[in-house]
Amino acid sequence: MAVKTHKRPSPASRSTQPQLRPIGVLRSELKQRKGAPRQGSEGAPDAWLEVHPFAAQALDGLVPGDDIIVLTWLHRARREVMKVHPRSDPNRALTGVFATRSPDRPNPVGLHRVTIREVVGNRLRIGPIEAIDGTPVVDIKIVLDCHKDS
Amino acid sequence: MAVKTHKRPSPASRSTQPQLRPIGVLRSELKQRKGAPRQGSEGAPDAWLEVHPFAAQALDGLVPGDDIIVLTWLHRARREVMKVHPRSDPNRALTGVFATRSPDRPNPVGLHRVTIREVVGNRLRIGPIEAIDGTPVVDIKIVLDCHKDS
Repeated sequence: MAVKTHKRPSPASRSTQPQLRPIGVLRSELKQRKGAPRQGSEGAPDAWLEVHPFAAQALDGLVPGDDIIVLTWLHRARREVMKVHPRSDPNRALTGVFATRSPDRPNPVGLHRVTIREVVGNRLRIGPIEAIDGTPVVDIKIVLDCHKDS
Repeated sequence: MAVKTHKRPSPASRSTQPQLRPIGVLRSELKQRKGAPRQGSEGAPDAWLEVHPFAAQALDGLVPGDDIIVLTWLHRARREVMKVHPRSDPNRALTGVFATRSPDRPNPVGLHRVTIREVVGNRLRIGPIEAIDGTPVVDIKIVLDCHKDS
């Protein structure tokens, strides 16, 4: 059973237009894409995820120690790129971006599995995460163990 | 090193507007959300992922047996919902949607980890997947093992 917060759901609220509305923003010491780790496991730092007020109550239930998947909008990515040399290595064969984790792809949504270190109001300290400062966040999903069913 | 397909990248191509452009659509025997499994592991069927021609070359390198994460736009979800009773069970406490896997959430992007069964041109047979027929697909990401680095 779903509980609405502001108004009755209407057919119009079931948008068929895939327009994202950022629910927060990442605050990180990583200021530019160049030099940033390619994966969180490659020495990335912790960062703060600031959730915008309109979505703050959707955090209810998250606690330190939880593993979450943060979905970001990689706003510096190039959306027209369809093939890349993996790891930017010209010796590696050109590969379709769907067979890689390149940020350059038609819809540059980043997935970042991180641990919640701290919850302070509408801010989460999370990590490790390789996304750069100012990256818009579009969703947060709890990681489910096989037998956990929420 | 990224390779462009059609034109030079320009600053304007680095969109800051999080507007998704579906890269494909799911063709499934599941025709409605009601009654669909909540997770792929709960008895969901295989389905066909039809990739639109503009993105077909981004599939290059994917082969049967690969595990991928399919990102969908859950077009039937209610975006104004911030809290839910997990598993639609009224006996369970209201919980923020970010602490659940409810499809109802501000940006209803679905994550589905599936295996590629077959590749036929620009179509992938994948599964198991609980998303319903007609669900727009917005991205495909190869699953990386810890020591695989593409």
